[in-house]
Amino acid sequence: MSETRWSLHPQLAADTVTVGDVALSRVLAMNDADFPWLILVPRRAGVSDMIDLGVEQATLMDEIALASRALKEETRCDKLNVAAIGNVVPQLHVHIIARNRVDPLWPKPVWGASAGRRYEDGEITRFVASMRRRLGIES
Amino acid sequence: MSETRWSLHPQLAADTVTVGDVALSRVLAMNDADFPWLILVPRRAGVSDMIDLGVEQATLMDEIALASRALKEETRCDKLNVAAIGNVVPQLHVHIIARNRVDPLWPKPVWGASAGRRYEDGEITRFVASMRRRLGIES
Repeated sequence: MSETRWSLHPQLAADTVTVGDVALSRVLAMNDADFPWLILVPRRAGVSDMIDLGVEQATLMDEIALASRALKEETRCDKLNVAAIGNVVPQLHVHIIARNRVDPLWPKPVWGASAGRRYEDGEITRFVASMRRRLGIES
Repeated sequence: MSETRWSLHPQLAADTVTVGDVALSRVLAMNDADFPWLILVPRRAGVSDMIDLGVEQATLMDEIALASRALKEETRCDKLNVAAIGNVVPQLHVHIIARNRVDPLWPKPVWGASAGRRYEDGEITRFVASMRRRLGIES
């Protein structure tokens, strides 16, 4: 599958700040101050479901694990929520969200339910910097 | 991690019909007539997040792919929704749901939103039989 024809879906670009690239995926930070939330987007054109990736599914699982550990170590969260949904934005993207028993929606899922409160200036920069450091991404 | 100390969470048992076991996971069929819906539960005690599985995450990804292909080939769905949430039932379980543009909740996620309409007698038996055949599970 082609990387050269891939470009990030504009809705994902609008909702997030870029953390950087790992081997297969672009890593994004959702601009939602209530939930520490990463999104992995494999840089492969025309891919909608994980099974469309073929053998690269294994790489995606490695990157899900990497991002999950980074998020858990940074936030000391109670639970990780990991999901590939994509009913609205068909470009394959995997949500990895740190959940806590005291967060605004616990125990409900956040998709379609979060108030979408944006980070204050500087807060998301600090979150992105911490994720880059933990993921080994140069800024 | 131990398989011998593992047992299926009673809430998962109450909501589903057993399809059978693959190498790592118990495969369940959710008793929800509006959505063809499988759940994979790794038979490992004390595991809540995918990263808790260690090296067996790769096996889980293989089984997610196997179940995804079975569900997609059987239903010809428009989209797969794959998620490990577990805020309510902490035992690690992965949802694999066949979604269609004409289903009752499209494009919303189903968790916490489905009406939970149960299959009529015989319907779920046919669904489970088709999944067993596609997954190579003996009945």
